[in-house]
Amino acid sequence: MADVASLNKEVQEQSNLLKSLRTSNADANLIDEAKKRLGDLKKALGAATGTKDPKEGTKKKDRLLLKTPKGTRDYGPTEMFCREYVERIVKDCFTSHGGSCLDTPVFERKEILAGKYGEDAKLIFDLQDQGGEQLSLRYDHTVPLARYLAMTGLTNTSSKLWQVGKVYRRDNPVMSKGRMREFSQADFDIFGQWDPMIPESEVLSLLTSILTRLEVGEFTIKLNHRKILDGIFEVCGVPEEKTRPISSAVDKLDKLPWADVRLEMTLEKGLDPDVADKIGEYVKLKGGEELLTKLEEDSVLKNSARAQEGLKDMAILFRLLRIYKITEKISFDLSLARGLDYYTGLIYEAIVEGSAPPGFGTNPAVPPSQGTESAVVAPSKPAKKASSKSKAKSGDDEDEEIDESQVGVGSIAAGGRYDNLVGMFVAAASGDSKKVAGLPCIGVSIGLDRIFAILWPKWEGRGMRAKETMAYVISVGDGHLEQRIELVRELREAGIKADFYAKNKPKLPTQFEAGERDEVPFAILIGGEELTNGYVRVKEQRWQVVDGKKEKIQASGKGELVKRTELIEWLKQTETLRTWSSGKLV
Amino acid sequence: MADVASLNKEVQEQSNLLKSLRTSNADANLIDEAKKRLGDLKKALGAATGTKDPKEGTKKKDRLLLKTPKGTRDYGPTEMFCREYVERIVKDCFTSHGGSCLDTPVFERKEILAGKYGEDAKLIFDLQDQGGEQLSLRYDHTVPLARYLAMTGLTNTSSKLWQVGKVYRRDNPVMSKGRMREFSQADFDIFGQWDPMIPESEVLSLLTSILTRLEVGEFTIKLNHRKILDGIFEVCGVPEEKTRPISSAVDKLDKLPWADVRLEMTLEKGLDPDVADKIGEYVKLKGGEELLTKLEEDSVLKNSARAQEGLKDMAILFRLLRIYKITEKISFDLSLARGLDYYTGLIYEAIVEGSAPPGFGTNPAVPPSQGTESAVVAPSKPAKKASSKSKAKSGDDEDEEIDESQVGVGSIAAGGRYDNLVGMFVAAASGDSKKVAGLPCIGVSIGLDRIFAILWPKWEGRGMRAKETMAYVISVGDGHLEQRIELVRELREAGIKADFYAKNKPKLPTQFEAGERDEVPFAILIGGEELTNGYVRVKEQRWQVVDGKKEKIQASGKGELVKRTELIEWLKQTETLRTWSSGKLV
Repeated sequence: MADVASLNKEVQEQSNLLKSLRTSNADANLIDEAKKRLGDLKKALGAATGTKDPKEGTKKKDRLLLKTPKGTRDYGPTEMFCREYVERIVKDCFTSHGGSCLDTPVFERKEILAGKYGEDAKLIFDLQDQGGEQLSLRYDHTVPLARYLAMTGLTNTSSKLWQVGKVYRRDNPVMSKGRMREFSQADFDIFGQWDPMIPESEVLSLLTSILTRLEVGEFTIKLNHRKILDGIFEVCGVPEEKTRPISSAVDKLDKLPWADVRLEMTLEKGLDPDVADKIGEYVKLKGGEELLTKLEEDSVLKNSARAQEGLKDMAILFRLLRIYKITEKISFDLSLARGLDYYTGLIYEAIVEGSAPPGFGTNPAVPPSQGTESAVVAPSKPAKKASSKSKAKSGDDEDEEIDESQVGVGSIAAGGRYDNLVGMFVAAASGDSKKVAGLPCIGVSIGLDRIFAILWPKWEGRGMRAKETMAYVISVGDGHLEQRIELVRELREAGIKADFYAKNKPKLPTQFEAGERDEVPFAILIGGEELTNGYVRVKEQRWQVVDGKKEKIQASGKGELVKRTELIEWLKQTETLRTWSSGKLV
Repeated sequence: MADVASLNKEVQEQSNLLKSLRTSNADANLIDEAKKRLGDLKKALGAATGTKDPKEGTKKKDRLLLKTPKGTRDYGPTEMFCREYVERIVKDCFTSHGGSCLDTPVFERKEILAGKYGEDAKLIFDLQDQGGEQLSLRYDHTVPLARYLAMTGLTNTSSKLWQVGKVYRRDNPVMSKGRMREFSQADFDIFGQWDPMIPESEVLSLLTSILTRLEVGEFTIKLNHRKILDGIFEVCGVPEEKTRPISSAVDKLDKLPWADVRLEMTLEKGLDPDVADKIGEYVKLKGGEELLTKLEEDSVLKNSARAQEGLKDMAILFRLLRIYKITEKISFDLSLARGLDYYTGLIYEAIVEGSAPPGFGTNPAVPPSQGTESAVVAPSKPAKKASSKSKAKSGDDEDEEIDESQVGVGSIAAGGRYDNLVGMFVAAASGDSKKVAGLPCIGVSIGLDRIFAILWPKWEGRGMRAKETMAYVISVGDGHLEQRIELVRELREAGIKADFYAKNKPKLPTQFEAGERDEVPFAILIGGEELTNGYVRVKEQRWQVVDGKKEKIQASGKGELVKRTELIEWLKQTETLRTWSSGKLV
């Protein structure tokens, strides 16, 4: 019974989370949510073990476990309203920046994903062999995009593509922080031969405008350049074949103190301690353009042609970012390395400063306000329990422990330049490994679930609606089903979203309650003498949330008499209908 | 090499399709598309077998096959523009009818899907056992919805839910007709205790308004009622245990002539030939309300309480459909049975009359104009090669043949009432099979790929755009990168989607070509004396497609001088910016 073991663990973890939320005086909504989830988990555990729930009747066996798969969840109406709003803003920014949409299948031929994710390949979901092709669920949007570009030919024709959709990783989920096994990513990529750093600054401008419009809170985009990093390794004396392993150690500096990273370099990866110390001096550096100047003047770095190329890029980039007016969001950070092997130039990560976990302020390389994010959009570095008791066993679904209270939402977007990935596909498909004519690419992935995890408490606190219905047609007196349907049909046809209570003779309070539940602004009453005379009564209503409770604001007393034939025009003229937008996060 | 066998077959099929398109004088675009696909397939086959392509260089080995998995495809920018338009209309209709959004994971625990799809269960995609839960890709949206409703408690609170997303079936794909292994469905469901047939007519009204707004062409919604059908079987003398198998035979009447269906009933399923003949008299009937009157007066049917319940429902429904003004779209059709077991009341299917395949006019029960659709949204009945040479082997990916020229787009939407599905989950989860307190539900699934297959040729013929960019900023003379970026940034900030050519000193014609490729309506030229004096030149351009070729209509000659500081207001006042909508299918 793998489920029981897994559920036992989930119950334990959830119970720890609840405890820590309580001791940290967390928001009441968060505590309630955690409590509710703990209850659900306990119920599921009871169902799985057949244990008698004391509150329920007799012992029952062979019960179906009603839950979504580990690391996934349903999103109900109010949550989807928020998620659709986020997607709408993101897509609007994508098209504002000249992007066209691409959609690829949710699974790929297994060989397409092979050799692209290094040791994270173990996180790929495979489909069962049912005859025919071997398939895997996509792990990101970048590899399918590169496969698409290699298939369709390499042109500049429509050089900006965006994708929004779900990707899949068999990682350890931290549900409350938006770290899922099924999660939504929004990608924007620019491909083709363009002048240096112009695509880079377009992508950074795009990312800035998305995060600003979504009001995720104060954010920073950390930048680094693979050529500078590799140049640093070079001048410090890292042997060429150790460049990527050492880079991967540096990548952990946002999780671990320098001393630990240094140990990994020297003990685990056999680097000369003197070389490690030299690296340490560089990767502690962060700042703005003044750091660039400092590095340009660094006499040791002058010995690396690679580093000089990277610095030249950075100089152009800073000039462009000033024109885009986004330099104040940027932190040039030499400790940023990014996990994936295929990056070849600029790399970046966006972090939201208000969403950090506690207890990660001990990293000397990064001040607490910035050093607290966990592994990103690309969770190549699962945050382990701080006490290092974690028992990571690759391939086993149930064996890692995560203390959710120790995990922040983490970086909410990341990306970089990858000039060789499309070329790899072209070469592999032609069977000629020397054929490297590829297509330069740069892109960014935005973690929509992370953003949702940040926005949701605010959204929920404001009591946002879950429906767009603008008019609720109500009968006074004798049911009037036919008249209600006729009016609803006309309203809908005129573009006014409308509904009614689907019973023949519903009671007046029942109908009002139904409209109120969805905060429908216009109640339209039909019946009696008014109906006979060709009039309806329109009552405009508003609600607001005060201290977490919804309160009705009586906007129009008994309502207004409107001629039935003029109703649609009348409604269209109202301030409410003209200004209300489902997506307004006021 | 399963791939080679599969590709050989695909090449053969595609070549047949191309032949039949040519002999039938099909649309030139269709022929071109088929030709292109044949070329791609041959190339892929060459790559898979390592065969030398005569046009290419030396023989190459171990080449990566660059393709999407069988039954799936990428959608590029122009196609996505059309698909996003379709989704937008569908969602707008969903919210107009009071729906709230639900999103469930793309995979479910395997046991959730078990026992829901009868013999079609073999079409379910399973995930590989990598430790932990056994998972399957969702087969439709209905079962995840029922699981969600059973988990969250049974309330009427928000009684209308919609879902849009991809579902998965390992069926034999017919790509050109939108029958895929990965396909998009849009579902709308109403749950809860409501008065008879009001939810039914809401769903039918919704479906009508969606198909009308999408301009899919003339369509018919075929209706039947499971209780009437079961009542007919009852009075004709079908033993209770044979009700579902006989119903499943009737369901094939849209594919096979009555004689074949009769044989299945008598020979294969052991039904008394006299009973079969009696059934035959009923299931040939179709029509409008006059058919209802005829059945109400049928003295034999009076002996079935079930049939009488169904007829009572139909009488209420017809009255409501008149109020909704949609009776002319409806065909009451006793041959409609629908494959899925869980339907308990009204069932329906929408078919588009102009999208039928050739050669299916021989069904005596259905006139040619209606009897030509293939198995729907729920492809429970794969259309076999007309010559019955098909070699169906369940579980094998590569073994069924489909002659695409013999397949129409088929029904584009289908659904029905399913009052027991949620109750099944509740009972299974409680471990008490007697606990059947469920939730009545009714819903409809709309096949978005089928609709896309119908709309796409029309859309493509009109040369619709693939980007929303409204202004393309062009430098005259010396590059002016800084000024171009500044202007683009301001335009985007003001909500005007804008772009520029990402080079330092691009040539004038290159920039014009780039804007033209995306049909950007406003070219904004900066440079020279005008720039110094604070002016830009705005050139409005339009294109139209004549005989499949794009032609520019010079709308404003040399363009208009506009003050740089007034540009944004000036643009916002233009007719083009005020009226242009990306989704307009003019």
